[in-house]
Amino acid sequence: MSGPSPATAAVRRAVREDLALLRRECSGRVVLVACSGGADSLALAAGAAFAAARSGFATGAVVVDHGLQPGSAAVAEAAAGQCRGLGLEPVDVVAVAVGRAGGPEAAARDARYAALEAAAVAHGAEAVLLAHTRDDQAESVLLGLARGSGARSLAGMPAVRGRWRRPLLELPRSVVRAACADAGLVPWEDPANADAALARARVRHRVLPVLEAELGPGAAAALARTARALRDDADALDALTDALAASAVRVEPAGGASAAVADLAAQPAALRRRLLRRLALAAGAPAGALAAVHVDAADALLLDWRGQGPVALPGGLELRRSCGRLRVERGARPREPLRARTPGT
Amino acid sequence: MSGPSPATAAVRRAVREDLALLRRECSGRVVLVACSGGADSLALAAGAAFAAARSGFATGAVVVDHGLQPGSAAVAEAAAGQCRGLGLEPVDVVAVAVGRAGGPEAAARDARYAALEAAAVAHGAEAVLLAHTRDDQAESVLLGLARGSGARSLAGMPAVRGRWRRPLLELPRSVVRAACADAGLVPWEDPANADAALARARVRHRVLPVLEAELGPGAAAALARTARALRDDADALDALTDALAASAVRVEPAGGASAAVADLAAQPAALRRRLLRRLALAAGAPAGALAAVHVDAADALLLDWRGQGPVALPGGLELRRSCGRLRVERGARPREPLRARTPGT
Repeated sequence: MSGPSPATAAVRRAVREDLALLRRECSGRVVLVACSGGADSLALAAGAAFAAARSGFATGAVVVDHGLQPGSAAVAEAAAGQCRGLGLEPVDVVAVAVGRAGGPEAAARDARYAALEAAAVAHGAEAVLLAHTRDDQAESVLLGLARGSGARSLAGMPAVRGRWRRPLLELPRSVVRAACADAGLVPWEDPANADAALARARVRHRVLPVLEAELGPGAAAALARTARALRDDADALDALTDALAASAVRVEPAGGASAAVADLAAQPAALRRRLLRRLALAAGAPAGALAAVHVDAADALLLDWRGQGPVALPGGLELRRSCGRLRVERGARPREPLRARTPGT
Repeated sequence: MSGPSPATAAVRRAVREDLALLRRECSGRVVLVACSGGADSLALAAGAAFAAARSGFATGAVVVDHGLQPGSAAVAEAAAGQCRGLGLEPVDVVAVAVGRAGGPEAAARDARYAALEAAAVAHGAEAVLLAHTRDDQAESVLLGLARGSGARSLAGMPAVRGRWRRPLLELPRSVVRAACADAGLVPWEDPANADAALARARVRHRVLPVLEAELGPGAAAALARTARALRDDADALDALTDALAASAVRVEPAGGASAAVADLAAQPAALRRRLLRRLALAAGAPAGALAAVHVDAADALLLDWRGQGPVALPGGLELRRSCGRLRVERGARPREPLRARTPGT
């Protein structure tokens, strides 16, 4: 009798090792697999069905029907049927209404995670297993690169955050897909994965293959390794910023926030820029609208002080320097917002 | 009379602003432009000829003849002639012998920087201006990504380090090339820039255009912005690691180095992993051979201690845990070196 294929063994081992870590941290009894019916999540369901019982967890699945394509209910039922056939129990199908906030990808993701969260609470599940692979991680890093907003946007997806766990995050997609085929499961191909209007699909089909062809077959692995290192860096710097902000940033009773120039200027750029961001957030600036150009202007007020006037920040705020402090307050009148300078174009 | 073109004005402004910063820091009187004869460095030479006199610097140029192609001496002389025509003085042509260490790109770079350094010393130059553009920076980030070795390898080139200055680092290459054409200069096209055997040429001609096409025309700018933020992060974390290592890492009188488990384990991953690297370096491990896989194994000895045996490190060293300390010492006998695990492939 031959054993499992290398791909199947790799998926089982990845799930088993992840559940062993979970077992050390908690005494829960239930884990759920988030299954879309795609090859990755069916392979995860099969791996979890094998590994979870041996780890002492009851293992179920949740299939979210986004209702975005005709026949999506049948796709969800077919996926649920395959999960039941693997011995998973309970297996829920949850239909969600996808809104529009943040664009189609973000809206579908928000609806999906909310449904998975609700299912986890309903079943008392300690963890929800997600089927993201190393290739998904590499795609996330490239999408973050295109935003250009620093370590956090390059840090990709965490292997573990709260109840969300991604046991396949270090496996190539090709291995996970092979494990799905080995298990005799029939995957559904999400047409969104081929929709060139979606940035992730473009990265998957057009950018990553070029990187691998030109820079070597290890490009996806290198991107995933980069993501992990940058996540560690961002976590450490954010924790240091928390500690510094607790003493340096003062929320003013009359509104706004301030910090002493001396406290900020003494820090290295990485911490100083994060502190300037915190200062603006503490005064109520909307996080999504705060960009590098605002931090640049605030930093110039700090380090290159020649008596210049206030800096306009998002949310109708103004940053000014007076009496040895930087102060963020509601502006007296609307100001022309700062724009990124694109030199010479 | 019409003024300079937007491209020429952008290059002049970039050089002028950079020299104004230099002026604040030093009282030197000479700067040199490193000129290859390519469009970027001719544009820089023209911008520097215009801006430097106004900044109170005498401005010369150094043309390095790498001797790698037939006719390279004539190319260098032609470049030097154009620099003299711009009014630069002194203009040196320096012929170098390119070795082989580290591959053709690294060997040429090492020889070039050594020659530029020697010329700077000979002329008492405060600064050497280099013509790298925002596109060069984006290429550096992508090459670092392919290595997958963390923030430092993604951080690209600094705008200023010691006497090296890159005033054009925020300008698109297209602007710099337009300024060269506007000045009526005749650039030399380095055939190495089109040599697909060289990784940078592949990134320039095959990877970046795909990124720009698929992720938007701002991809190069985003990569350059990322490089700056990650350089700040790496600088801050390295400085924190220096401070921690000074008290935590002990060089042993009998050879090797050690650190208390408690001192290392209390740190966040970003600092802990950097400290583990420092510990190995302090014991004499060769920096180039120390890889993520070694730090992973050391970290497991620290955080996942189950009495496991020593970890083999490059340079014939062993890392072991005993009596509450991690110790790096010369190994008793050769050990199988660690290899990166590529799961399932």
